Order: sequence, then C-alpha cells, then structure tokens
Amino acid sequence: MIRVEEAEALIQAQARNYRIERVPLDQALGRVLAIDLKADRDLPPFNRVAMDGIAIKYAAFENGLRSFSIDGTQAAGDKPLELPGTESCIEIMTGAALPASADTVVRYEDLEIAGGKATVLAEEIVRGQNLHVQGKDKKEGEVVAPANKLIDAALVGLAASVGATELRVKTLPKVVIISTGDELVDIDQQPLPYQIRRSNSYTIQAALQKYKLHADLLHIPDEVTAIRERLTQCLEQYDVIILSGGISMGKFDYIPQVLEELLVKKHFHKVQQRPGKPFWFGKHANGVVVFALPGNPVSTFMCLHRYFVPWLKACIGLDVDSKVYASLSRDFNFIPSLQYFLQVSISISATGQLLATPFEGNGSGDFANLVEADAFMELPLEKTTFKAGEVYRIWPFKPLF
Amino acid sequence: MIRVEEAEALIQAQARNYRIERVPLDQALGRVLAIDLKADRDLPPFNRVAMDGIAIKYAAFENGLRSFSIDGTQAAGDKPLELPGTESCIEIMTGAALPASADTVVRYEDLEIAGGKATVLAEEIVRGQNLHVQGKDKKEGEVVAPANKLIDAALVGLAASVGATELRVKTLPKVVIISTGDELVDIDQQPLPYQIRRSNSYTIQAALQKYKLHADLLHIPDEVTAIRERLTQCLEQYDVIILSGGISMGKFDYIPQVLEELLVKKHFHKVQQRPGKPFWFGKHANGVVVFALPGNPVSTFMCLHRYFVPWLKACIGLDVDSKVYASLSRDFNFIPSLQYFLQVSISISATGQLLATPFEGNGSGDFANLVEADAFMELPLEKTTFKAGEVYRIWPFKPLF
Repeated sequence: MIRVEEAEALIQAQARNYRIERVPLDQALGRVLAIDLKADRDLPPFNRVAMDGIAIKYAAFENGLRSFSIDGTQAAGDKPLELPGTESCIEIMTGAALPASADTVVRYEDLEIAGGKATVLAEEIVRGQNLHVQGKDKKEGEVVAPANKLIDAALVGLAASVGATELRVKTLPKVVIISTGDELVDIDQQPLPYQIRRSNSYTIQAALQKYKLHADLLHIPDEVTAIRERLTQCLEQYDVIILSGGISMGKFDYIPQVLEELLVKKHFHKVQQRPGKPFWFGKHANGVVVFALPGNPVSTFMCLHRYFVPWLKACIGLDVDSKVYASLSRDFNFIPSLQYFLQVSISISATGQLLATPFEGNGSGDFANLVEADAFMELPLEKTTFKAGEVYRIWPFKPLF
Repeated sequence: MIRVEEAEALIQAQARNYRIERVPLDQALGRVLAIDLKADRDLPPFNRVAMDGIAIKYAAFENGLRSFSIDGTQAAGDKPLELPGTESCIEIMTGAALPASADTVVRYEDLEIAGGKATVLAEEIVRGQNLHVQGKDKKEGEVVAPANKLIDAALVGLAASVGATELRVKTLPKVVIISTGDELVDIDQQPLPYQIRRSNSYTIQAALQKYKLHADLLHIPDEVTAIRERLTQCLEQYDVIILSGGISMGKFDYIPQVLEELLVKKHFHKVQQRPGKPFWFGKHANGVVVFALPGNPVSTFMCLHRYFVPWLKACIGLDVDSKVYASLSRDFNFIPSLQYFLQVSISISATGQLLATPFEGNGSGDFANLVEADAFMELPLEKTTFKAGEVYRIWPFKPLF
C-alpha cells in the first residue's frame, strides 16, 4: 500500500501530450490553446478615438486657439479625414481612426458647438487625450495569449479580434468509462430490492465535460470472459480506460487479474487513503493508461478529482502546481492510519479567507453529501485530530464562486 | 447618472422566472433544478455490505463462536441468501444486500478460510460493522437535491441513482446579442486600416455558455432605419436583448432614441462607474428587457458580469447574495469620482487567503489584459487611494481554481 503522494507521482509520471488539433473558434471554449496566439496587427490597429467630440491639432490650442471650424464629420469605420489647417477640426466618433493631421480629441462635454464652430470650454486639455494609441495594448506579432492557456470567454473575444477563425488546441485523450458490478441496472430500469442503478459512469462523464472531454460509457458484467474480451477491445480503441468497481478483495473482483493478463503493467494497487483505498493504476505497453477506481461512488469521485483530473490537466498543459487551501471551521477527528479526504463545503469570509466546513459523513458510502459539498479537504496522514482554524489543502470539485 | 448599487437594484427588480422545462439527464449538466429531486427508495435501498468477507449473526460471535461453516456465496446483485443457522455464514461481496438473518460482516482481512470454514481472527468485532445501513443517507421520498440547485456532476450521479432519466430545470431566457458599430467587420474578414473585427458578441456568447445559455448573434449597421427594423423584430422574438455599442454621445449613437421610440422604457442611462459609464437599461411593456452595454470590450465585459449575469442568476434561482472578497496585494490609486472596476489576477495564499493583484491597465480600452485577469475588483466610489491589505469585493469572471 503506497501513500497518496507516491500514487500521485506515479500517475503524473505517465502524463503525456496527445498532440494538437484545429477547432473552429465557436467550439474552442474550454479547450487549451496549443500554440501562442499572436496579434495579426497592432492592438489597437490605429490611434483609436476614445470619446465622441472633435479631433484637433494640439499645437493650435497651445497657441491660444479655442474656436475651431468644423470641417467634416467622421464616424467609426469611416476612412480618416484630414484637417485642412490647424484652425479646423473634425467632429469625430468613438472608435474612429484619428486623422494623421490631428493628435488630440476634445469630448463633447468640454465643447460648445454653434454656427459650424466648436469652441473648447475646458481650461486645460492634454496633448493626445481621449485616444487609445495604436499598439498600446499589443504590437503586431506579439503574443496575446500563450500556449497552454485555457480558452475562456475573454480569450474567445481576443481571438476574434485577431482574426483567428480556428484555434490550435490540445487534443484530448480518448476515454472510455467502464462500470462493473452485477448489482447495477441502468437508470431507466426499476431495480430489484437488492440491486441499485448505475451512477458512477454518469458522474464521471459529467465531471469530464468541464474539460470538454466526451467520454464513452460501457458496462461489463462481473464475468471473467466478458471482462477480458471488452478490455481487449478498449485497449485497442482508447487512450485511457477509467474503470469503476471490481478491484477489491471480492471473489468476483476480476479486474486487476485480467488487466495484468492483458499486459497492463500494474503501477500500484491500494493507496493509504480513505475513501478510495483499493485504487489500481497501470499502463499498457501500447501507452494506454488504466485508472481502476473503487466502485463506491464517493471513492470513485474522490479518486477522479485527486488523481485523474490532475493527470489530465498535465496532459493538456494546464497548471497542476497551484494549490488551494482553506481553514477548517470546526474540529474534526480521524483515527485510522489513512490519509482522509474530508467532504467540506467552502465559504469565503468578509476578509477573503476560505473556510471549510466538514460534513458529518457516513464514511465512503455517503454519496448524497456530495451534492452539498464543494471540495475534499486532504487531511495529513500523520495526525488524528484537526482543530478549527488549521489550514489544509482542498480539492474543489465545484466552481466555488 | 446613477450609482452602481442603484443600477443593480433597478436591474434585479426586473428578474423573473422563465418557467420550467424537462431535459434528459445527459443534457442537464449546468442547468438549474426547478423542483426538489426526491429519493425513489431508501439510499442505500438495502443493508449494503461495505467490505468483502462473511455475513454472520453477531449473537453467535458474542456467545463465543469463532468458526463459521460457509453455507454459500453471495455476490453483489444476487438475491440475498439466508443463514440456515447461527453457526453458518455466507461469503458475501461488497455491494450485496445483507441476508435478513445476518446483521454483521467480518472482512476477509480478519478471517482465515479453510475446509469450508471461516474463522474470525479479530479479537473484537462490532455488531452491524461493515454495513451501510438501509436509508442511512436518505429515506424514500426525502429530498436529495433541492430546487434552485445548479446541476453538477455529483447531482447527475445522484439523479441517475434515483432513476431520474429526465430532470425538470429552469427555462433559460431567449437572448439575442446585437453588435453595432460601422467600424466592425466579421472575424474572417481582413479589416481596412481604420476598421476592426467584431469581438464583443463572441465574448458575450462564450461567457453565457457557462449557464448553458445559447444566445443568437446579430449585427446591425449604424443606420437608424435598420436599427428600428431589427430591434422591432427582436422585441417580438426574444426575452432579452443585449446590445453592445451605440449608446454614447456620438452622432450615430441611435440606440437609446430608437429603443424609446419602440416603447422600451428607459430605467437608466449612465452609471457612475469606470469602465461602462454609458450603460443603458430598459424594459418593453411586453416584458423584454434590454441591456445596452457600451461598445468598448472591457466595458461590455464588466457590465455583463456585474449586471447581466447576476440578473440571469436571479431569474433561474441561483444564489446572488453570497459575495466574494479578496485582499489587495499592492497599493492602487484612482482619482475620478467613479466607481472603479479594477482588473485583478487572483491567487490564494498558503493560509487560504484570496489575494488580488491589479493589472497596470490602459483604462477601459485594455482588452488584452482580460486574458490574464481573473476578476474585477469593485473599488468604493468614496475613496481614491487603496492600500495593500485592504479587502474589497471581487467579481470573478473565470473559475478561480
């Protein structure tokens, strides 16, 4: 039985890059940028007028001129006009490109306009005011978003502005989620009194949608021939197999045995943790990695978030080093010599402190609490009593805010 | 010009329920549960064996018996066997339903099995151990997830387990995002030197996908007849119109005028804030609400997250009262008499404290920073200097962890 950090290290050692693919911009949200996105022109691409008003040459104002004859009107999107002389101005709108012969914009609020003339009322104006200068945000060719960045709404907008109709993104591994357990029936069936409905596969599938990963589902009965046959197929067709159930000490827990028969090399079996102790992890010579998670719903869920998700993030280049901590809001005891993953709800104090409130759990069976909980708090193996105010690492499985 | 809190209150007063609809479970992720989800049976539905081992009657052990004859094997999913007598046991697997005549499970680790007999090696066992008792998590008919809860992966799994092949969820309003501005060309076009590409519509559309809201896009030229015609259609076809641009003091900013012509009652125009001062909000007699956001990308983005998203959350029943705070990591000054929304990146300290680091911005024009920033920090109107360590409210626009 290995420790949590050893299990994590063995899994992270198997992180690999699954290549790159192109996706249309409208399908890129939630994917990870594979190469730097660069500005195709300066941002802004011209000296962009930032207020509605008039464009003038500052030198004229500096020389005492206050009243400018209006020589034309330039809307956003119009080809820039030119000032015929320093005593002229152009009425100009936000978003327009400043005429080359002007250098300053005076906004309507600081003007009086009458008889074809604009008179500046403001005592003082500044050369270059009310302009967003060409290239101020980014220069042509400069990186606007680096590789390995998660594509969010802001990045979609920026990609649109630099004309990226497609983005090169990290390819996601092809994943199958396999449920086992002859006590399981499908959702739309009425279980017999000693049966339950399948739920783990759906939970895992839903959790992976956060990463735009659409995993296939498969159920295999607790029957050694069927397991061998279906796993053989899956080892050919997928990059990753996530199993749930069939890895404990039960007489019908054939999974580890069959995996090893099929040349999936075991990297570990059993981790010193609760929930999730029977967790099995291995890799086939062809590169397929196998996460065989314990069948208990809370164990599955914990192992998914503590091990699979960080592995996936490493594969697609997302940050796995930053850690999230919260302060325990009340005392908690846990005696067994296992690293405990406590279900907690997270709140934030008026000073910006994360607080974790433990759920009174029923051990690894308590699936219903997961709906109310926000995170697992990873309590150190070496301790048995945990006091209010102590700070530990958390693994959020919901958006906290 | 009204204050931020007044604008917020006027908008929130227009939050309404857009009814309820049914969606298949596999499309429910990210939606909001409209009615309480209840357990169709007890959870667990039977006394569920939690370890592989043997099922016995505790009284026999209590009376000194240590060696039990194995009378059969019961896998998970099997119809429960019965103990023929108190000296017998059943080999039983995790997930199985405990026989009615047994009350305790001894795990394999605490047994020696030989010659058809299982001998208990453990000194002590506890009545009812290694069982997950029927109904311990939830009783039949009990609420497992309340209405107004966001449907996340854990809830999908729980819904599967209670046989909910469909869920009743809050209907989302029908939204159109309208861009205006004759300087804008589409993404796939090469802009002239004084033109730029449309980006706001794509940003807004992407941001709303978080709520599974799929908004339509429309572009209208800065031409009063076209604006009138298309807005008339949109007022008939949508619940919400989000406009970007065309609401400042420019000569071609026809939007407010046309909206009022079309009987969209103005609730406010201009908010004492930066960015986003020209923000216009109103409502048509037929119930359509109109968010006319300033065209600058940062202004659009800020107003979307500060005003539209909380309104949407209120409409679909999500919590809008909980606030997120962070501590400023360095001093910042802002002089104008406007409520400033500072772009910040968020990190978390090893004590669980949220820290906000300001970006050196270019004012409301600095769109490129949004890719790196995580949140807007709302700085109080009454102050001009903000010191490191001071705590203010933040509006995260990315998942922080």
